[in-house]
Amino acid sequence: MTRLFADRMSSVHRSFVREILKVTENPEIISFAGGLPNPRYFPVQEVAHAAEEVLSQCGEASLQYSTTEGYLPLREMIAERYAKKGVKATASEVLITNGSQQALDLMGKVFLNKGDGVILERPTYLAAIQSFGFFEPVFHSVPLEEDGIDPQELERTLCKDESKLFYSVPNFQNPTGITYSRDKLKAVAEKLSERRTVFIEDNPYGDLRFIGEDGPSMKNYLGENAVLLGSFSKIVAPGIRMGWICACEEIMEKLIVAKQASDLHSNYLCQRILHQYLMDSDIERHIAKIRRAYKDQRDFMVHTMEETFPEDVSFTRPEGGMFLWATLPESMSSLHLFERAIKDKVAFVPGQAFYADGGGSNTMRLNYSNSDKERIFEGITRLAKAIKEEAS
Amino acid sequence: MTRLFADRMSSVHRSFVREILKVTENPEIISFAGGLPNPRYFPVQEVAHAAEEVLSQCGEASLQYSTTEGYLPLREMIAERYAKKGVKATASEVLITNGSQQALDLMGKVFLNKGDGVILERPTYLAAIQSFGFFEPVFHSVPLEEDGIDPQELERTLCKDESKLFYSVPNFQNPTGITYSRDKLKAVAEKLSERRTVFIEDNPYGDLRFIGEDGPSMKNYLGENAVLLGSFSKIVAPGIRMGWICACEEIMEKLIVAKQASDLHSNYLCQRILHQYLMDSDIERHIAKIRRAYKDQRDFMVHTMEETFPEDVSFTRPEGGMFLWATLPESMSSLHLFERAIKDKVAFVPGQAFYADGGGSNTMRLNYSNSDKERIFEGITRLAKAIKEEAS
Repeated sequence: MTRLFADRMSSVHRSFVREILKVTENPEIISFAGGLPNPRYFPVQEVAHAAEEVLSQCGEASLQYSTTEGYLPLREMIAERYAKKGVKATASEVLITNGSQQALDLMGKVFLNKGDGVILERPTYLAAIQSFGFFEPVFHSVPLEEDGIDPQELERTLCKDESKLFYSVPNFQNPTGITYSRDKLKAVAEKLSERRTVFIEDNPYGDLRFIGEDGPSMKNYLGENAVLLGSFSKIVAPGIRMGWICACEEIMEKLIVAKQASDLHSNYLCQRILHQYLMDSDIERHIAKIRRAYKDQRDFMVHTMEETFPEDVSFTRPEGGMFLWATLPESMSSLHLFERAIKDKVAFVPGQAFYADGGGSNTMRLNYSNSDKERIFEGITRLAKAIKEEAS
Repeated sequence: MTRLFADRMSSVHRSFVREILKVTENPEIISFAGGLPNPRYFPVQEVAHAAEEVLSQCGEASLQYSTTEGYLPLREMIAERYAKKGVKATASEVLITNGSQQALDLMGKVFLNKGDGVILERPTYLAAIQSFGFFEPVFHSVPLEEDGIDPQELERTLCKDESKLFYSVPNFQNPTGITYSRDKLKAVAEKLSERRTVFIEDNPYGDLRFIGEDGPSMKNYLGENAVLLGSFSKIVAPGIRMGWICACEEIMEKLIVAKQASDLHSNYLCQRILHQYLMDSDIERHIAKIRRAYKDQRDFMVHTMEETFPEDVSFTRPEGGMFLWATLPESMSSLHLFERAIKDKVAFVPGQAFYADGGGSNTMRLNYSNSDKERIFEGITRLAKAIKEEAS
């Protein structure tokens, strides 16, 4: 007897990247494949202290059921941080989620009928393709240039199909490390004004800027038509699974209903621990420390690539975040290269996984946040050798 | 400009019960409305100790990203507990979820197309109606009798529509407190054999039995066509949001894909803390303590109702769990009664919320786990007075 699964299951599969990560679990492999923050900068002692404080001061309350919206003082802190960055948001516009990944699922639930349009950057964050994919939308990919997407191409896409959602990672994008310029942000905002398309600004890396100045949030241009996603995974730790959505009241009302049906509320004990940690520590100082460390690692990776990679391999120099993106000669398959590299015990993510509509077979994503200099040097040297061998 | 939400959002609303709970937040109100475990029995110190242990011994690891399936040693413990209860399950058949509520969402995602049939007990757990409702199924409600659903009615329902899912809470059901007899379980299993319908056995209260012997799991009759949901919310604490699904490999493969797209993985720090707690403590002894306490509270509530309620109000005497269910005279509306009772500062949940297809207007759910004897006596006495006034 064959089992009857939902139609949506035929188009979604286990993440290719997660399968790759399993291959790279072997500690002998130097992996630039994962998207892991460097655990050296997890505030372990501070979190331990916060847990002790919460459980000794309000143990029973922190272990009970709680509200769908999330712990109000934590939401207030998030709203206050937005205010400091010039983004107007109240605590009632903030919903706590299980990492920002859950925010994608909730946005899909609230907005997408089968066949609805979703605009993506090309390439884009793989797990967004997967998450929205469950709602069987039609994806429209708009090419990413060095400083954001091509606004003319966006205009053409919108004319064909005024899509419900436009998903973007405007700062230090995963996978490319690309950041929108101010001009591009403005141009995109212009194209979207007078449209009903909701712009999802996913900004998990925004705080990790090494160079240059923060750009404005799209909320400043689009107001209620911009929904902001944020995460504590990269600035505190991912194991606490704490992210959020910031949306206007009308959308928030729907998101709360969807969240309630999905899991009632996010982990309350960890919300309280996180809040206590943020009360007791100087998060901005902590972020500055991570930023310095990642800048060092990024500089060293870029430098090593400049020294060792063939000239016909180009790559981005991200202003922040955790990833850089390399483009091999057109004829070279990064999937083939991956197989060769694994034998030399070095790994990366072949880029084609990040294209919703195919392509990108000569691209690759490299993570620098989770490797120290020694391993970066050794891994990049091995990778350069593999590329040269693959070319010949 | 009106915003374009997904069609599914027009049929789902904020939980009526959650709205009621807001009314009852006033501490002057004696509330039998919530479904909260008694925080007095939360193992606060033990959880604090476990958190300290985890963060000092493996802090970095416990704060990092983790696998979608969940922490293997925790899944092994769950499989071992099943074995002790005579249910065969391996750790690879267990997926950790954010409470068992998320399990409902994942099951909906994996199985339900719009218009697919879902069989429910009548009445049933409200949040299941909500969670499955997002997938726009057709609900078929089969009346619940004193010892489980009516098997003949199930047969008629299956002949009309071989539904994809049958959702059941076989032990001390929420809202009614009803438990399936062995005969009823067998009869239901017989009707379902040779069918493709997947039986969802949601068993969050199963460990809280006061009287009698545990019945078998439907998995023992239906094998791979039974999916089991479990939760630590009632035996440890709900604030840690830890539940699980136990399903055969073919279904598990799909559930993992759905979980990955939903939120990557459940809160890892709390998985590790829970595991540590279960290692260091005697959970069975802890459960026995909760069981004794709830039995006392249930006995006292039943006794007080017997003494004070008019004779034409009937109610269940649950063998375990957290709720009992009262049926008022046919002509009396529990919604009206609720309004009157709130003025007298006592609350319950009017029963109609638990009917997917309407009805139940003279029923009500009463929770006894979250009130001590003094409040039970005072609240039930007030409620009896309100019922008598409503009757006259």
